[in-house]
Amino acid sequence: MGKIKLADISTSAPKKFDKEKTKAVTREILEELDELQNLMYAEHKHSVLLIVQGMDASGKDGVIKNVTGTLNPQGVTVYSFKAPSPEETDHDFLWRVHKQAPGKGMIQVFNRSHYEDILIQRVHKWIDDKTAYKRMDAINDFEKLLAVHGNTQILKFYLHVSHEAQQQRLIERTEDPRKMWKYNEQDLAESKLWDKYMNAYEDAINNCNYIPWMVVPADQNWYKEYVIALTLRDTLKSLKMKYPRLRK
Amino acid sequence: MGKIKLADISTSAPKKFDKEKTKAVTREILEELDELQNLMYAEHKHSVLLIVQGMDASGKDGVIKNVTGTLNPQGVTVYSFKAPSPEETDHDFLWRVHKQAPGKGMIQVFNRSHYEDILIQRVHKWIDDKTAYKRMDAINDFEKLLAVHGNTQILKFYLHVSHEAQQQRLIERTEDPRKMWKYNEQDLAESKLWDKYMNAYEDAINNCNYIPWMVVPADQNWYKEYVIALTLRDTLKSLKMKYPRLRK
Repeated sequence: MGKIKLADISTSAPKKFDKEKTKAVTREILEELDELQNLMYAEHKHSVLLIVQGMDASGKDGVIKNVTGTLNPQGVTVYSFKAPSPEETDHDFLWRVHKQAPGKGMIQVFNRSHYEDILIQRVHKWIDDKTAYKRMDAINDFEKLLAVHGNTQILKFYLHVSHEAQQQRLIERTEDPRKMWKYNEQDLAESKLWDKYMNAYEDAINNCNYIPWMVVPADQNWYKEYVIALTLRDTLKSLKMKYPRLRK
Repeated sequence: MGKIKLADISTSAPKKFDKEKTKAVTREILEELDELQNLMYAEHKHSVLLIVQGMDASGKDGVIKNVTGTLNPQGVTVYSFKAPSPEETDHDFLWRVHKQAPGKGMIQVFNRSHYEDILIQRVHKWIDDKTAYKRMDAINDFEKLLAVHGNTQILKFYLHVSHEAQQQRLIERTEDPRKMWKYNEQDLAESKLWDKYMNAYEDAINNCNYIPWMVVPADQNWYKEYVIALTLRDTLKSLKMKYPRLRK
């Protein structure tokens, strides 16, 4: 399999997709998803880990809200990874991540994830390249553990925005009162490290491929919502789940 | 490396070891250990995971008490693995184990461990051989994660008793009032599965060797205490730890 180059992949929805038609299709998919999630919860056999990664302002929060927000929260949980606590840094980098793995019947969404340990940490040179590559091996082993021994379907999405679209959105955060709470001076400094982040993402996507990544064109919110909802729906459908029969 | 056959390894202390002299040496080692553990806690860089496996009545509880019982409990914790809870069985078999991994500066003792997932579960055919071998791969990956990314020294001891010594000890539990609390009817049933357990242990020891095992002749308590104390002491000494300097 050839290595992907992010610069070669469009950040825009393919031309053939119409915004309003796609939104209508997504609404139908979300209704199906609601039923499929209930079935998965009832069957209590599989689980789903949905990993959402992307640069600041790539739309992680929004897509999580719009795709999983209509599902029964009893069966869907979201974990947002922040800077690790002292207790967490006292352990291997996957210790805090493994704790958050989904149990049977559950959909767990990671808003950011263990991938930050080979992204922000690498870009800022808190770890050297040798450590980064060792961590990539460990991530493959870890995802294999969840998939093989946890019966977990892992879906990994990279929200692919252009640097221009990102900068535009960061500026909007300084202007729109409903978005100001998301503004963080640090984000603009991080944005200047764009090329370094793209290289780190490419390495993560190309090397951590025991479970393959989906690179989602993310300049339009309606398109990324469609892609993620569709992938989740198709994954659940492929499990051929059944409601347990009445135990007499 | 040749595969080990447990039947070829003596369960008795080597002839050259004298009981009283060895006990005196162990006492000296334990004093050194006390100082080394304090140093490890202060340096806050390494951790130790000491795994104790063995058949019922092989002396796990006793050796844990006598080797780690004199150390500062602030830096030494013991986790005894029992049958998993429903929440635990909803996850991959290493989920509950990873949670108990030691943080920097700590010695964590496992009284039984993730190895039960390829021992009792295999002997009773709760899992098939194919699953058992996949779990062995996952165990190697997991121990590698702790060693490489958690900076954890992993020490794995199999307490090797003879079937005769085990049966003798199980009978004592029915006769000695101070030991009756340990008596469990189930243990005698398990004892009849001896050969199947030995085969499962041999597979675990031969295949889960990213971190090698130590097979400890365990018919005499004083000898296994000596071996485990010595190994722990030598491991800590090899780390060339230093007390942090005063931060001014």
